[in-house]
Amino acid sequence: MAAGERINLGQKLASFAEHWHPKLVDTIDDYEIKVVKLMGDFIWHRHAEADELFLVLNGALRMDFRDRQVSVAAGEMIVVPRGVEHKPYAEQECEILLLERRGVINTGDAPAGALTRGQLERI
Amino acid sequence: MAAGERINLGQKLASFAEHWHPKLVDTIDDYEIKVVKLMGDFIWHRHAEADELFLVLNGALRMDFRDRQVSVAAGEMIVVPRGVEHKPYAEQECEILLLERRGVINTGDAPAGALTRGQLERI
Repeated sequence: MAAGERINLGQKLASFAEHWHPKLVDTIDDYEIKVVKLMGDFIWHRHAEADELFLVLNGALRMDFRDRQVSVAAGEMIVVPRGVEHKPYAEQECEILLLERRGVINTGDAPAGALTRGQLERI
Repeated sequence: MAAGERINLGQKLASFAEHWHPKLVDTIDDYEIKVVKLMGDFIWHRHAEADELFLVLNGALRMDFRDRQVSVAAGEMIVVPRGVEHKPYAEQECEILLLERRGVINTGDAPAGALTRGQLERI
């Protein structure tokens, strides 16, 4: 599935506007490489069996855990460990590269709702 | 193994100077997230069973394949598909985030040599 082609992340991000809607840009083995725009509050959730990489490309992300908050700015990253409850938050629009195993649902163990994205669009 | 901590990639890259020597910064599931500085020519090799993600953080990388060359600048990425012979090249120093499954050797199927890095230092 990996393409062996150059992917410009800024161009990919410029091709859509909606928030909290990850788009697939490539795969590596069984992992999906996605870009997503965040703004405001997501929901609390966890992924029982999967770590999740957030790499900030533009803006700043705040990753809330139940016991602490971690600010992550452009050029910084955080891996949320499997099983750990978390809630991404962005005071202003923030652009992210997201990497996780294929099939991981963005809202994790939370009940599926308006923010849940199952099938991903590839851009 | 994932830490749940913010990692500043620029700070990690500023902590060492050598070229072609990947440093481990975090893990996601069984995958290693590494930073590396490139300059000049690497060697031709392939990874029979592993795709390999190169995300350029600073500078520009040229990924040589046997039938083409792909230029990848800061903010761009390329996934080299498993089994495909490739040779990274950087005319000037280039800083990269590298992601691949744990245990993948940087020189792939090429005979181990001066550029081969087995055990990775975590920084």
